[in-house]
Amino acid sequence: MLPDLALAALRALFEGRMSTSAAALAEHAQSESLVTAGKPDAVVFPQSTADVAALAAWSTAHRIPLIGWGAGTSLEGHALAIDKGVVVDFRDMAAVLDIRPEDRLVRVQPGLTREALNRELRTTGLMFSVDPGANASLGGMAATRASGTTAVRYGTMRDNVRGLEVVLADGRVIRTGTGAPKSSAGYDLTGLFVGSEGTLGLITELTLRLHGQPEAVMTAVAAFPGVGQAVDCVIATMQMGLPMARIEFLDTETVVACNAFSGLALPLSPQLLVEFHGHPEGVAEDIRRFREIAAGFGAEGLQWAEASEDRTRLWAARHAAYRAILASRPGAKAVVTDVCVPISALAQAVDETRSDIAASGIRGPILGHVGDGNFHAILLVDPSDPSEVATAKALARRMAERSLRLGGTISGEHGVGFGKLGLMEAEHGEAWSVMGALKRALDPLGLMNPGKLVPGQP
Amino acid sequence: MLPDLALAALRALFEGRMSTSAAALAEHAQSESLVTAGKPDAVVFPQSTADVAALAAWSTAHRIPLIGWGAGTSLEGHALAIDKGVVVDFRDMAAVLDIRPEDRLVRVQPGLTREALNRELRTTGLMFSVDPGANASLGGMAATRASGTTAVRYGTMRDNVRGLEVVLADGRVIRTGTGAPKSSAGYDLTGLFVGSEGTLGLITELTLRLHGQPEAVMTAVAAFPGVGQAVDCVIATMQMGLPMARIEFLDTETVVACNAFSGLALPLSPQLLVEFHGHPEGVAEDIRRFREIAAGFGAEGLQWAEASEDRTRLWAARHAAYRAILASRPGAKAVVTDVCVPISALAQAVDETRSDIAASGIRGPILGHVGDGNFHAILLVDPSDPSEVATAKALARRMAERSLRLGGTISGEHGVGFGKLGLMEAEHGEAWSVMGALKRALDPLGLMNPGKLVPGQP
Repeated sequence: MLPDLALAALRALFEGRMSTSAAALAEHAQSESLVTAGKPDAVVFPQSTADVAALAAWSTAHRIPLIGWGAGTSLEGHALAIDKGVVVDFRDMAAVLDIRPEDRLVRVQPGLTREALNRELRTTGLMFSVDPGANASLGGMAATRASGTTAVRYGTMRDNVRGLEVVLADGRVIRTGTGAPKSSAGYDLTGLFVGSEGTLGLITELTLRLHGQPEAVMTAVAAFPGVGQAVDCVIATMQMGLPMARIEFLDTETVVACNAFSGLALPLSPQLLVEFHGHPEGVAEDIRRFREIAAGFGAEGLQWAEASEDRTRLWAARHAAYRAILASRPGAKAVVTDVCVPISALAQAVDETRSDIAASGIRGPILGHVGDGNFHAILLVDPSDPSEVATAKALARRMAERSLRLGGTISGEHGVGFGKLGLMEAEHGEAWSVMGALKRALDPLGLMNPGKLVPGQP
Repeated sequence: MLPDLALAALRALFEGRMSTSAAALAEHAQSESLVTAGKPDAVVFPQSTADVAALAAWSTAHRIPLIGWGAGTSLEGHALAIDKGVVVDFRDMAAVLDIRPEDRLVRVQPGLTREALNRELRTTGLMFSVDPGANASLGGMAATRASGTTAVRYGTMRDNVRGLEVVLADGRVIRTGTGAPKSSAGYDLTGLFVGSEGTLGLITELTLRLHGQPEAVMTAVAAFPGVGQAVDCVIATMQMGLPMARIEFLDTETVVACNAFSGLALPLSPQLLVEFHGHPEGVAEDIRRFREIAAGFGAEGLQWAEASEDRTRLWAARHAAYRAILASRPGAKAVVTDVCVPISALAQAVDETRSDIAASGIRGPILGHVGDGNFHAILLVDPSDPSEVATAKALARRMAERSLRLGGTISGEHGVGFGKLGLMEAEHGEAWSVMGALKRALDPLGLMNPGKLVPGQP
């Protein structure tokens, strides 16, 4: 509950653009994952940078935390109030502000989703490449340093955010980055805010890099005799330097779930879903080379989806894999894991994870963006069975620890929120305290998304 | 002069690995550019991370600044002591520590130069791509966020540093980054230290990304009827999305200087020097497309250098362009400028810069890595003529201001040091004070390369 004075001041600023209704608070206390927290005290819907700056000034004056909210698709509790605070829902700041085709840049507001952006871009010959599966908001994707299926070719949000407008904890508004493709003038503030999960400020505008829609696109599904061969094929492909646009792994259990959920008829074996982008001559040669590599690992019957509908159908099925896996155990919820290891350690990481899951007694299909060493196990549990939930959480923790042991990271793309806070020191050691020092420098009162990412919070 | 107590303590730590000789101090007060400063009080040659950590503790105890030194090739005074301090010369920390071909990573010490690294890599099929021309140290390149001819394809140091070991101002040693190709776990500290110019800590180890040596390489020189056509050809090429490995512009004056200095016989007109990397089939198609675009802008007689010796000769001449231009006016020194603009503004930026130089009465050949909007004018002056020096500095300032007006940056790749400190507020506004806050958080005593990059120093 907000103190009366604070509430009155907030109403004076956001009358008609805020809510303290039980329904609104409950809606903004939900998460797609098993990570849960308390409810916020209020939800506000700013319409401008000035609104957000006023909100930050209010937050400072009344010592009330602010928590950014995009599309609510994050998986580690990033957008949930730990025990109090105001959720800043960017749904009314979702405009495309400026498309600059000649510079391959677009300026957008943070509440815009990636699918909405790509619809706007359709006729320009350009595309926004980062594709985490969920139709996340672009502000949220930047805050979480999201990536997904195409990162192996076009990079993550780190590589595709050119500049930001950010409202700081004290209400100051800064701009980072320039319209130039590169710069050596000063600390990389854009890079610092990307991945900072709302703990250093609230993103109110983004300038994003665009890429040309590829002239030729070819997608294929390759079936492998075993998980080891599929993973080894990925490793060989990446080490050969093939310019993969996408290279996704699905284990047999994932394939079964996708076939059932999305009406596919993929062979029941581990699969790689690959895509090539380029000019027709380049893609033809890439395909020839991939076919050769894949054959060496026992791949059979590569199925090429040249027609746009077939490709769309395959990728829609891939994106629905999470829901497909959930649907494979009615009533289940999932502990969604997310680790990323050096390519050289990928086979060992997947293999040990599979054995660990197999020994645990719960189901956990594995899939992932294996071209950059990133994979997920979707650990299915009955949420009302504390023993299953505990087993899954222990498995998830061991996956993260295994990733660290193999030289990887506790999160490839989902971020930390508070779901993975307990693993940060293991990954970063003393560098985690440096993150804390940076946090305190920009947010000395600890009002920006407290309880997430950095030490000593709240 | 160091206080006696401080000097005695330093000698106890670095006896035999330090110098206070006039020659050593003078050598470390030199710069390749017209940016000059005072002399350091001592030069030390650490051999290990522990040495650097001990030095930081000494610096904190005695309140003496530390200034990192790699190969001394920086152009904005980054490695110069403003009025006092100890230069940390990394010449004895120049080892390749670990090559991991399967992950395309290499771990190196900061004093290693990029050419030495590429010699070590020659038989591995891999290469380190960042190529600023000078044979800079890799630690210095990271600190300055260097780039160069190949950034248009392979990225700058921002994109090619995977992780760092850094000694902080208080002597703590941290590691940033992991062996995984990406991560969403916490603030991007690697990105923060890259480009921080030694103001946040001293880099003692780098993990760098490597790329496969391309199977096919083709280099060509294209002559254009005028600067406008050459620049417009670059813009069209980039907007078409051709995967250029290099695309360099040389104006006629630069061509004259290179012909004389490097024994070339290039036609006396504005030139583009382009290179394609890939598999033979892809490169052949890239070339066909580039030829078509270039012809549309009046390019004549594309000369292809397919043989490795011819390519090497061309790129050696390009890298010697700075020396060639200096040699074209005996006794001259140069004010080296470095701006980077959005591709859409490149033609206007180059055009206005040329007119400005032409009206100034001094010579200033223009060249640059135009594929990412980055270009340089080498403003030639008689260093003993204050009026010429003042004219050149005013031209340089107007170039930077023009770049800002056109949406660009005051530095594409050379960095800020103290040479461009006076332009930082114009580029960043309030964000510059945020850089200052981050600096104070990690270096509250202001001992790490004071007087550079951030406000309020020393």
